[in-house]
Amino acid sequence: MAESEKEAALPPKEEFSEWYNELLWMAEIMDVRYPVKGLYVWYPFGFAIRRNTYNIIREILDNSGHQEALFPLLIPENEFMKEAEHIKGFEDEVYWVTHGGRDTLDIPLALRPTSETAIYPMYKMWVRSHADFPIKIYQIVNTFRYETKHTRPLIRLREITSFKEAHTVHATWEDAEAQVKEAIGLYTEIYRRLGVPVLRSRRPDWDKFPGADYTDALDAIMPDGRTLQIGTAHHLGDNFAKTFDIKYETPDGEQRYAYQTCYGISERSIAATISIHGDDKGLVLPPEIAPVQVVIIPIIFKKGAEEVLAACKDVKERLTKAGIRVEIDASDLRPGAKYYKWEMKGVPLRLEIGPRDLQNNVAVAVRRDTGEKEQISLPEIEAGVSSKFEAIHENLYQKAKVELENRIFECTELEEVKNKIQDGVATIPWCGKRECGRAMEDVIGAGILGIPLEQKRDRKEKCPICGEETETRVYVARTY
Amino acid sequence: MAESEKEAALPPKEEFSEWYNELLWMAEIMDVRYPVKGLYVWYPFGFAIRRNTYNIIREILDNSGHQEALFPLLIPENEFMKEAEHIKGFEDEVYWVTHGGRDTLDIPLALRPTSETAIYPMYKMWVRSHADFPIKIYQIVNTFRYETKHTRPLIRLREITSFKEAHTVHATWEDAEAQVKEAIGLYTEIYRRLGVPVLRSRRPDWDKFPGADYTDALDAIMPDGRTLQIGTAHHLGDNFAKTFDIKYETPDGEQRYAYQTCYGISERSIAATISIHGDDKGLVLPPEIAPVQVVIIPIIFKKGAEEVLAACKDVKERLTKAGIRVEIDASDLRPGAKYYKWEMKGVPLRLEIGPRDLQNNVAVAVRRDTGEKEQISLPEIEAGVSSKFEAIHENLYQKAKVELENRIFECTELEEVKNKIQDGVATIPWCGKRECGRAMEDVIGAGILGIPLEQKRDRKEKCPICGEETETRVYVARTY
Repeated sequence: MAESEKEAALPPKEEFSEWYNELLWMAEIMDVRYPVKGLYVWYPFGFAIRRNTYNIIREILDNSGHQEALFPLLIPENEFMKEAEHIKGFEDEVYWVTHGGRDTLDIPLALRPTSETAIYPMYKMWVRSHADFPIKIYQIVNTFRYETKHTRPLIRLREITSFKEAHTVHATWEDAEAQVKEAIGLYTEIYRRLGVPVLRSRRPDWDKFPGADYTDALDAIMPDGRTLQIGTAHHLGDNFAKTFDIKYETPDGEQRYAYQTCYGISERSIAATISIHGDDKGLVLPPEIAPVQVVIIPIIFKKGAEEVLAACKDVKERLTKAGIRVEIDASDLRPGAKYYKWEMKGVPLRLEIGPRDLQNNVAVAVRRDTGEKEQISLPEIEAGVSSKFEAIHENLYQKAKVELENRIFECTELEEVKNKIQDGVATIPWCGKRECGRAMEDVIGAGILGIPLEQKRDRKEKCPICGEETETRVYVARTY
Repeated sequence: MAESEKEAALPPKEEFSEWYNELLWMAEIMDVRYPVKGLYVWYPFGFAIRRNTYNIIREILDNSGHQEALFPLLIPENEFMKEAEHIKGFEDEVYWVTHGGRDTLDIPLALRPTSETAIYPMYKMWVRSHADFPIKIYQIVNTFRYETKHTRPLIRLREITSFKEAHTVHATWEDAEAQVKEAIGLYTEIYRRLGVPVLRSRRPDWDKFPGADYTDALDAIMPDGRTLQIGTAHHLGDNFAKTFDIKYETPDGEQRYAYQTCYGISERSIAATISIHGDDKGLVLPPEIAPVQVVIIPIIFKKGAEEVLAACKDVKERLTKAGIRVEIDASDLRPGAKYYKWEMKGVPLRLEIGPRDLQNNVAVAVRRDTGEKEQISLPEIEAGVSSKFEAIHENLYQKAKVELENRIFECTELEEVKNKIQDGVATIPWCGKRECGRAMEDVIGAGILGIPLEQKRDRKEKCPICGEETETRVYVARTY
């Protein structure tokens, strides 16, 4: 639609914010012109990326014993108001439905900002016995936040269109703890499939999920050095179980409160993937989520045009049969314009086939990630393309990993932290006391992201506020 | 969860309403205990049926040139109020969001009852040229109706959780007409895959979609003789295009209003499938949508137990590899209790494997739809199971088709119609005049469903109201 409007150049990726906004538009991922702030439209191309990404998420959850279900969007005020901490965390952000037709509703209905208060009244009825555990259920839904801050497509939304939230129930605190660990592991695996390396940390106490014992989180480092929270897992203790009266019978016949966790991932997964891999020419997509994985460009001269087109169709057919998503661009555009278009859309591999290639029984494969050209023998085109896909995926991940590592700065002074977080994430010793953490944040003017989930604790260092010895470092970052 | 609570007997299917409600609960499709009227919870098992069903819907739409996208849930009041006919049709049923946090919103936001007014402001920007046509976009979303009538899971809902709505744009009225035809054809194909035969008719003018030129619809006949509307396709003319200013440039460079259609299908597709195929023992699912397609029951005696279990595992592995969804029930339940449980869940095929079967190198296959038992040779188990699936699917459809045909009654007198619609659908001549149609409805005490899309017009009959000659018959039915 209106391709011609989009021939303007993409801003360089260095100007990340402009690049990001323009890219979403030029690559037809999101249309930001919907007439309500913070609500955006998924173009078909963007939605295809979403579909492929969420297929990965579903696959990984299903294979680890999760079951998909679906709970209502609307939460009655009385249920929503049950958990005191939870309300405090959300009350400024909740949309309220107050009218149906011309009637005023007896009980206002909240649009779920997250679904604890929709799901746990059901869990109260579903949970009966220790033999039911673990219960591991997830849903993929739209959730709502009345954001007053600056909104941004895929990142800060009033309608989160693609919130995958899992809610689990267990017999003991330790089982729930193990579940949080599993969740962080599964999310890491999901991001590995997207070629996105992550930071994993435990949020400071003042930044945990409202009503949780603790929150572990995954963050990506975005091209401008700010971190983007792209997954969280919360240990809920028995806090919600007590509020919603979720009890189970132990093997001894005792009634006991259950322990719970919940963990979520959203379309920020796509924001991170796009931002981390993209370049000045547009999207660079990992093959697994690319709506078009291979574009075939027939190189046509007057002589031999038919043979070339026939060969292209044959290659398309064979690759399609092998489960690969392929397009032939036989349009009238100049080759350069075709390259521009498909590069913008992040197609991982371009195959050029001309008369000379046919003579040599090859196609010229051009990788989107590196620009490398290489011939692939036509008789082995399926295997050739698949092995390129693997190489592309691995390269994207490794490149991103090096970039991530280069953006983590070990600091000892707060002034240094202030400086380094302009480019990425700083680490700094912290004694663990709340008042020292808050004081550091004040000095730095940015927040403690969290305590890395895995770190060598082999050095004694000093907390920059109180001077107490500690073996713990924390991440500090500017965040989205 | 709480299996034991569900050992109570299902009411006979003759008591359809009770049977339906109990079945949804006992087979773990929907939980109706959510604390808001008209909102229900999809159990994981029910959701798996939903997932398989919507995979079929997506496949058929994708293969016919449709693209999936996603538009916001919230529609600003000023957009929603633009199309006068449309508003009249929905204003009593719309939920309104009036508050965000503690703020009153400047502009109230409607929860989409359907998405014309969310999508068409975007189409105004997307549609440019005749070369863009046809635009065929769909989304699968939750929509909302403030139902004041009696609600019923999957059938009459306040949150329709699974509304597939397509919105297309064309150059001419005729192109849009052809698109409506295509839609009805695709929906028929979807229902063929679900084993559900349909009635296809054009709704009378007073029952068309608000703002449409005409509405074609698919109905199923439910076991109690009432019809359930399970798909609609609307020719929107250029009515919405004029309201939302959707214009395209013709090949001659003229600006002209576009023609549009929209068509929808919802979780009523699942209600119909369940209701039509189910029996006194519970669900009977077409293999393609069954979450569990085969259950293997090891028949265990003291001697040879290990061999039997090993053989069951081997069969499971082989069937799984062939893409079949299999469970082994090696629980401690009596065989009878196992049969009860899996029959309730509609598993199309049960395989029993005992020591004697192993000696004969066979499994005993029991069909859920007919109860027929037959041996399948173990070395050919994959092919044997697949061919049973085909037979089951075909049998379900043919049986339902005969039932449908037996429930259509050709009538000539209105009194006869009144009588026959207690058991199904009546047909009666109609001259086509609105006042005669309305008068018939008054006499009968039920509505004209529509004019069959295909009927032999080879007889001249008399309109029972005005006596005018006509070759047209209409469906009359009690409806859900």
